[in-house]
Amino acid sequence: MLIGVPAETVPGETRVAATPETVKKLTAQGHTVRVQSGAGVAASVTDAAFAAAGAELVDAAGAWGCELVLKVRAPAAGEEALLRPGATLVGMLNPFDAEGLARLAAAGVTAYALEAAPRTTRAQSMDVLSSQANVAGYKAVLIAAERYQRFFPMLMTAAGTVKAARVVVLGVGVAGLQAIATAKRLGAVIEASDVRPSVKEQVESLGAKFIDVPYETDEEREAAEGVGGYARPMPPSWLERQKVEVAKRVAQADVVITTALIPGRAAPVLVTQEMVEAMKPGSVIVDLAAAQGGNCPLTQAGRTVVHQGVTLVGETNLPALVAADASALYARNVLDFLKLIIDKDGALHIDRDDDIVAACLVAHAGQVTRA
Amino acid sequence: MLIGVPAETVPGETRVAATPETVKKLTAQGHTVRVQSGAGVAASVTDAAFAAAGAELVDAAGAWGCELVLKVRAPAAGEEALLRPGATLVGMLNPFDAEGLARLAAAGVTAYALEAAPRTTRAQSMDVLSSQANVAGYKAVLIAAERYQRFFPMLMTAAGTVKAARVVVLGVGVAGLQAIATAKRLGAVIEASDVRPSVKEQVESLGAKFIDVPYETDEEREAAEGVGGYARPMPPSWLERQKVEVAKRVAQADVVITTALIPGRAAPVLVTQEMVEAMKPGSVIVDLAAAQGGNCPLTQAGRTVVHQGVTLVGETNLPALVAADASALYARNVLDFLKLIIDKDGALHIDRDDDIVAACLVAHAGQVTRA
Repeated sequence: MLIGVPAETVPGETRVAATPETVKKLTAQGHTVRVQSGAGVAASVTDAAFAAAGAELVDAAGAWGCELVLKVRAPAAGEEALLRPGATLVGMLNPFDAEGLARLAAAGVTAYALEAAPRTTRAQSMDVLSSQANVAGYKAVLIAAERYQRFFPMLMTAAGTVKAARVVVLGVGVAGLQAIATAKRLGAVIEASDVRPSVKEQVESLGAKFIDVPYETDEEREAAEGVGGYARPMPPSWLERQKVEVAKRVAQADVVITTALIPGRAAPVLVTQEMVEAMKPGSVIVDLAAAQGGNCPLTQAGRTVVHQGVTLVGETNLPALVAADASALYARNVLDFLKLIIDKDGALHIDRDDDIVAACLVAHAGQVTRA
Repeated sequence: MLIGVPAETVPGETRVAATPETVKKLTAQGHTVRVQSGAGVAASVTDAAFAAAGAELVDAAGAWGCELVLKVRAPAAGEEALLRPGATLVGMLNPFDAEGLARLAAAGVTAYALEAAPRTTRAQSMDVLSSQANVAGYKAVLIAAERYQRFFPMLMTAAGTVKAARVVVLGVGVAGLQAIATAKRLGAVIEASDVRPSVKEQVESLGAKFIDVPYETDEEREAAEGVGGYARPMPPSWLERQKVEVAKRVAQADVVITTALIPGRAAPVLVTQEMVEAMKPGSVIVDLAAAQGGNCPLTQAGRTVVHQGVTLVGETNLPALVAADASALYARNVLDFLKLIIDKDGALHIDRDDDIVAACLVAHAGQVTRA
């Protein structure tokens, strides 16, 4: 089968959907992989490295024109015309973008949005949200350390002691956990908060302190348990009390990293303007929810702003800033997913009884198939 | 006594020569500290914080016009006119800048260049080169991690393992040791090289591997021992063999941090163009000698450039990028030095029998006093 890997065209998107490692495996399975020339450059993968792995270097039309096309991001408006009718497209196609899915359906392609995979054990190795959130959590801490004008670790020097940075992580999913782990590596003192009490143990196992906010009603308790690995929106009563607890910690923090996302909805506000204004000058907030409205109303998507001495980083695509490893992990996720849609004879098939396939299939035979 | 703290005016200089901590101590000793309004802002110190510590906020003339003036950097050409004849100036005045010292002498001030302090145990607490090199070493690794498109730590994820970054540190003074410590914190695998065999133990105690380059002649051995804590230039025979050993490691490195400086001389070349071209695309070099010509001929002072896929960072003032803690440490160095030039009655005196005072005194009574 011809498998195409076009270059990404979204501004700032540096990742690539295949790497020499995955090209080699696909080639060994008898497929021909056509990579658009230059597709890997921003991810530290040269054309020569792709060629050495067995890929054919082609132009955009050559990569888009294959039977199976691997992408990081959904095609930009108009790009779907480069796909052959009947082709299969795999990528992070944004299952909440009804218009984008309609365009793919209209183009007559079979499309799989990998973000829609269920968060089950079997799906873990193809969980693009997790692999990329891991990268985002790491990068968020590096950006914070880069912006923060003091040391993260405590240091004892001839000129006296330097205190460790106080880091508060709000939202302890995959990104939050990696942020905690990275800040811990750098020697910070860390407190973390989340609506799911189950993460407390994980937080503590990484050497951070969990900020407890007790539940007072059954409604609060039920909401906190959540569905599909995501927290559901918590009732206002609880959010108010959480604000009070979190506000105390944020006021003393040097660095705050917020990671609270609810799929398909605006991000919850965790750090209010008032809380920012109570922070010390020189403090840094990295808002991983910037692309979805932000966990802080002062965050500006895609920009870094300073508000009363506090720096707010609103990067919307942190994984793209660690392009090589983000691509390496993503490409492995894709490779694993392909096992579900390519049969033993190397041909594409659609197994709707497979819960992962069924969840990811967003367009087929001219129809949007997203529930 | 009136002590003035002007704002720094060198472009990119964010540090300040006093902090609320040191202002409080000087005030408690009975001095009046006049800080130029805004002098601390880039170092996360507000005017309000200085005022709360007991400082008077003044304009530039008010800060420069004091009996004792504390600075980070030497006055820019013309700024020395703001000093009163007979005033005392303390700062990093660049003892190798004959022209600058001549201007200070002509202005009739008593000037102490803190970089000239001997590297003795007693001088450690006022060793500005060490305190700032410590900051530079930390920041160099953060910048490298920021530019590098992969993870520093090894990670085991659901999408497979990510390898740890390979970091090579060339030159193991204070900056190099802190670079090793910081890269180690972030989970990298580190090799280090230096012309002084004595650092091998320190390198290994931080969890890095020392790259051995044996000495073959007495000349090589003597040069390696060095003077005053600095390595002397090594003979060409040894440098050639070191290049061979280092080149092997650099070719496999993901990140190279070079820190080799010789006071008052051009920095030695440790990474040649050929070595850069043998590195993997996506690798990062941070050259801490950028301001003195660089340890790599491709480094451009003050700029970040990419050569055949390798990023070369030529920041010339890394401590200024960690302004708050760099200032905190520097201000403590200054405070400690002041004990040597202020007598029990709170008056300035010049004790030429004190080896630190004698070494730092670069201008007095119209004369350049630098040996």
